[in-house]
Amino acid sequence: MPQASMTTAPTDTLALALELLQRPSVTPDDHGCQALMIEHLERIGFRIERMSIGGIDNFWATRGQHGPMLAFAGHTDVVPSGPESEWQYPPFEPRIDEAGFLCGRGAADMKGSLASMVTAVERFVTAHPDHHGRIAFLITADEEGPAVHGTRAVVERLRERHEPLDYCIVGEPSSTSHLGDVIKNGRRGSLGGVLRVRGIQGHVAYPHLARNPIHQALSALSELVNEPWDAGNDFFPATSFQISNLHAGTGATNVVPGELEVTFNFRYSSEVTQMQLRERVEQKLAAHGLDYQLDWTLNGEPFLTAEGELLEAARRACETITGHRPALSTSGGTSDGRFIATLGTQVIELGPVNATIHQVNERIRADDLDTLSRIYEAILERLFARGPHGAFS
Amino acid sequence: MPQASMTTAPTDTLALALELLQRPSVTPDDHGCQALMIEHLERIGFRIERMSIGGIDNFWATRGQHGPMLAFAGHTDVVPSGPESEWQYPPFEPRIDEAGFLCGRGAADMKGSLASMVTAVERFVTAHPDHHGRIAFLITADEEGPAVHGTRAVVERLRERHEPLDYCIVGEPSSTSHLGDVIKNGRRGSLGGVLRVRGIQGHVAYPHLARNPIHQALSALSELVNEPWDAGNDFFPATSFQISNLHAGTGATNVVPGELEVTFNFRYSSEVTQMQLRERVEQKLAAHGLDYQLDWTLNGEPFLTAEGELLEAARRACETITGHRPALSTSGGTSDGRFIATLGTQVIELGPVNATIHQVNERIRADDLDTLSRIYEAILERLFARGPHGAFS
Repeated sequence: MPQASMTTAPTDTLALALELLQRPSVTPDDHGCQALMIEHLERIGFRIERMSIGGIDNFWATRGQHGPMLAFAGHTDVVPSGPESEWQYPPFEPRIDEAGFLCGRGAADMKGSLASMVTAVERFVTAHPDHHGRIAFLITADEEGPAVHGTRAVVERLRERHEPLDYCIVGEPSSTSHLGDVIKNGRRGSLGGVLRVRGIQGHVAYPHLARNPIHQALSALSELVNEPWDAGNDFFPATSFQISNLHAGTGATNVVPGELEVTFNFRYSSEVTQMQLRERVEQKLAAHGLDYQLDWTLNGEPFLTAEGELLEAARRACETITGHRPALSTSGGTSDGRFIATLGTQVIELGPVNATIHQVNERIRADDLDTLSRIYEAILERLFARGPHGAFS
Repeated sequence: MPQASMTTAPTDTLALALELLQRPSVTPDDHGCQALMIEHLERIGFRIERMSIGGIDNFWATRGQHGPMLAFAGHTDVVPSGPESEWQYPPFEPRIDEAGFLCGRGAADMKGSLASMVTAVERFVTAHPDHHGRIAFLITADEEGPAVHGTRAVVERLRERHEPLDYCIVGEPSSTSHLGDVIKNGRRGSLGGVLRVRGIQGHVAYPHLARNPIHQALSALSELVNEPWDAGNDFFPATSFQISNLHAGTGATNVVPGELEVTFNFRYSSEVTQMQLRERVEQKLAAHGLDYQLDWTLNGEPFLTAEGELLEAARRACETITGHRPALSTSGGTSDGRFIATLGTQVIELGPVNATIHQVNERIRADDLDTLSRIYEAILERLFARGPHGAFS
C-alpha cells in the first residue's frame, strides 16, 4: 500500500474532493468518480463489487469478516449546473475561494461527503487494521435521477442474498447552519395520487344537461384539504396533503368540462401507513358519490431511526468534534435512505451544510470537510475500534 | 317595379332561400347575400343604408315615415360546414330532398328566416302600399363570430341618432319540434369571470413555506357553486353559476403551485343585475381572505319582453297560421336580441325548427318556409295594416 494513503492527513480529504469535483458526473454519468473511490478503497483492503444495473454504475465494497456491518452510502452523480454564466467559477473547475469556500457543483451534494468518508475510513483502518465489525460502501450514480437502478436496485441484491446491514450513514447534506448541527434520523413517506373525476360535458347555458365534475368534486376536495390525517409524533410533523396540479376545461368559456384531474401528494409520518391513507381518501370520495378513477404512486415509505447505537455514536461524534449537540430532524424530501431502511437498517443522514445544494455557485466551507471526515472517523472509533477508546476495547 | 316581385307567391320564399344558401357566407364573409336582399327591398320602396363597420357588412333598411317601427333582424353569415364528407349533399349546394327537407348550411340558422321575412314584407307592402308604421331590416354578417362590428355596432348608431325602435323580430330558429311552437321572448344574461388566486409556490415537502392557492380557494369556490343566486321568475329559470375551466400547477408533482386560475360563467335571470352578481362574488372571495384578481366580461345583459303588442301579435299569428298556441321561452344561449333590447325595444325571436343548427346536414322542412313567411306577414297585418283585418282599420 502506498505510503500516502497510510498516513492520510486532513488535507487529503480536500484533495480527494477536488479530484471528484473535476469530473462532470451529471446523472447518470459517473464519469470515473467511482473508479477513483475504488482505487482508494482497494488500497486499504476493501473487496469491491461493481454493480452496473440498467446502465447505471454502482458499487458495493466491504472490509472485515465478522460482526455488525456499517455502510457509508452516497452518490457520485450531481444535478446539472444550470446556466454556467451565473457561476462565479466554472462549475466543474473546483477551487477554494478567498473566503475559504470549496466551490463547484457537488461540493455539498455530495462529493465532499464521499471524500470525507473515504479518508475517514483510511485513517480508521490504518489505526485499526484488525477492526471489529464490517465496513461497507454503497455508492450509486443515480440518486438525482430516476433512482430506480441505483441504491434501490443494489439494496434488492443485498436483500436477495440476505446480507445483513446494521448501520448506514448516508452522506446527504443534513446540516443547516453549521456542520453537524442536524442529523436526519428519518424521512417522511411520500404517496402520490392522480384523481380523475368524470362528469358530463355540455353547454354552460344548459347546465341541467351536463354534470360539472368541478362542482361535484369541490366539497370532497375541501374535506381532503382540511382533514387532520394524524398529529405527527416526536420525530415527524403531522402528515400533510397537498394538491399540486388541478386541471379541467377545454379553454372555451361556454363549455362545462367532462373531467377534472387532480394531482396530490401526501408527505406522511410513521403514525399512518400508506394503505390507511389510501383507504381514507377513497372512502371520502365514495361518500361524495363521485364517479372517479384514482391512480396511486408510492414514492417512498417513511423510515425512522428513533434510537440505537448508530444514532448515539453519531450524536456523540458530532458533539465531541464540533462542540455542539446535533438536533434530530426528519424534514425535507426523500433520500436513498428510504430504500436502505427497508433492510431493517439503522439509517442516519449526516453531511455538510445544505444551503446551496442544487443552486448555482454550490459551495461549502473547505474546513468543514476535514471536520466531517473526523466525525465519520469518530463514529467508526465508537462502533468498531478495538483499543483504549473503542466500544470493543 | 318588376311584376315578379309584386306578386310574390309562397314558393318565392323557397326560391330566395335557395339563392341565399348557394352563397358560402361563412362569418365574416357576406358573399353577396345582403346585395340580394337589398335588391328585393329596394324594389318595394325600402330606403337602404349600408353600414360597413370594422370590415363587416351590415345594412339598415326602412320603409314608411311615421308611427311605430318594427324591424326584422337577422344575419347572413353562417357557421363553417364542418367536415364536408359527412354531409349528404354539399353544404353550399342547397336542395330539397325526397323527404321534403331544404338542406344546406344556413337553412335553419338563418337564411330560411331571411327569405321568409323578405317575401312576407313583399306581400304585405303589395297589399298595403300605404301601411301604417315603419318597417325596417337590421341585417349583419357577424352574428356567429365576434359579434362586435355587427348588430351591436348598428344598434349604437341607431342609439346615437335617437332612432326609435319599438318592435323587433329576430329570425333565430326558436322552434323546437314544429314551426311556431316556441317564441323566445327573452334571454338570460351572460356574465363571465376569470379569477386568479395567488399563493406562494414551494415544495410539497415544505408546505409551511408555501401557500397553496388551491387549498385556499376550495371553500370559497364551494360556496359560489352552492349559492342560490336567485329563484328565477315566471320567465327565467334560476340564475346558474358554472366553472368552465380550472387550472393550477406546473406539471411537477412535488411543487405547490403559485396560482390558481378559475374561469366561470353566470347565466342570469332578470331577478338580479350583473353588478349585484359581481358584488356578491367579490364579497365572498374577500370574506375568505383570498389574495386574488378577478376580471369580468359582460357578454350580454338579460332581456325580457314579458308582454306587449308585438308578443301578442306574434302569438296570435302563430296560432292562426299553425293552429297551435306557441310557448314562451327564455332558454338557450345569447342572441343579437340582447343588443337590440338595450334600445327599449320589444324583442322576440321567431324562426324555424332549430334541431340541426350548427350541425352537419343542417335542414328544415321546406314547407315551413312558406308558413313562416305567412306568420311574419300576419304579424305585420295585425300591427301595421290599414283595412278590414288590421289593427288600424
